[in-house]
Amino acid sequence: MKPLILISNDDGYLAKGINALIEMLRPIGDLLVVAPDHQRSAAGCSITTEVPITSKIVRQEEGLTIYSCTGTPADCIKLALNQHASRKPNLVVSGINHGTNATINEHYSGTVSIAKEGTMHGIPSIAFSLCDFDADANFAPMTPYVRRLAEKVLEKGLPYGSLLNVNFPLAETYKRIKICKMALGMWKDEFTRHEVYYNKDYYWLGGVNIDDDPNDVLTDNWALNRGYIAITPIKIDETDYSLMDEVSSWDL
Amino acid sequence: MKPLILISNDDGYLAKGINALIEMLRPIGDLLVVAPDHQRSAAGCSITTEVPITSKIVRQEEGLTIYSCTGTPADCIKLALNQHASRKPNLVVSGINHGTNATINEHYSGTVSIAKEGTMHGIPSIAFSLCDFDADANFAPMTPYVRRLAEKVLEKGLPYGSLLNVNFPLAETYKRIKICKMALGMWKDEFTRHEVYYNKDYYWLGGVNIDDDPNDVLTDNWALNRGYIAITPIKIDETDYSLMDEVSSWDL
Repeated sequence: MKPLILISNDDGYLAKGINALIEMLRPIGDLLVVAPDHQRSAAGCSITTEVPITSKIVRQEEGLTIYSCTGTPADCIKLALNQHASRKPNLVVSGINHGTNATINEHYSGTVSIAKEGTMHGIPSIAFSLCDFDADANFAPMTPYVRRLAEKVLEKGLPYGSLLNVNFPLAETYKRIKICKMALGMWKDEFTRHEVYYNKDYYWLGGVNIDDDPNDVLTDNWALNRGYIAITPIKIDETDYSLMDEVSSWDL
Repeated sequence: MKPLILISNDDGYLAKGINALIEMLRPIGDLLVVAPDHQRSAAGCSITTEVPITSKIVRQEEGLTIYSCTGTPADCIKLALNQHASRKPNLVVSGINHGTNATINEHYSGTVSIAKEGTMHGIPSIAFSLCDFDADANFAPMTPYVRRLAEKVLEKGLPYGSLLNVNFPLAETYKRIKICKMALGMWKDEFTRHEVYYNKDYYWLGGVNIDDDPNDVLTDNWALNRGYIAITPIKIDETDYSLMDEVSSWDL
């Protein structure tokens, strides 16, 4: 029996990125796709608690079933595992995202939230993103890397509670793979202000991301900016163990 | 000059919890409140990228300004810092949430996302939650603890990139404070399925949270289940450094 691979994304099931991913992974597994019915970028780990969600099969053939779902990316994985998967998937793969999910912006990512959700359910999980927001981005050069990495994780597994966040630079050919840490940093000038009638202002989110240390060769953003593929291992456990001692010493 | 404290929540600016928090903190700082205009529970770190957001002042008096905002909890902090704060806040405080934000469910939390956003902007940040989802929950017993912890963080600061996630048990009086790690675990039976006309099903998110090790005395959930106040230090940097070596050894 082929491994079962559960796939989702945050750009919606019609996006070029997820359909490229499906074609890359068809040779190595049976695919169950449960993906949002529309664009859900920057959804973070949000889930739908106040209204119900629905799903429907939009494509079904040998070794491939695709559902569209009205929920968030994280909802899609929860629903797939709880209602649509005939057996426990061997791997969860998300993407391929149109645009980077490196650095602290990973926290806002719907793409990464899918891999977090798979990980929280004890399934090895990988998030794939390409540093190109174009709807018609060229995913073809990623094919051998994506397939090989999926095969490797199927073979090796991942430690419980950890996932791989994989970002590809905008390039026709890639330098080698680098294993990276998340670049820390912050956004500047995040909103632009616009005025409408009756003194009613509105604000658009935008801004510029600034790495704390752009020269740190261990970070994902350093690697991406120089044409390397960046693999960042991510932990679900966000506990700051070193700070536990410090706070314990406070007189509280 | 009093410290400037930026406050938000994910239950909306009208919730009892945030108004309790405002009264608790008024004696120790000037307060800028920018909070969602409606319920935004389980928003995670989601942000609004596809449509603009608006905000308006709903209350203004000496030492206190309250804005309601159409954005997510994370948007509220970004907007406050970029557009509404007259100086850089000394502290970001979120909550008090109606309901727990302990364990891995912290990833879904809008309350914690506020403290993460403050932290990413280099401001010491605390998230407060009470294990009581009731809209009329009794926050009064929390008062001395919340005030003291806010004062302590104003005095001591927090290391860059880390925040405190503070959960209070459902109790009239509390045992002492415990400094904890996040309980790992997963949700089971997450969706219930309901059928409507024309073979159209819908699903409601629910389920039961299961800790991996309910007897681990170091976890936040262990502490809360026994009447302790749980303080969990959380890191923005989710890199799994130990896994970097392992993946580096793979033949990729």
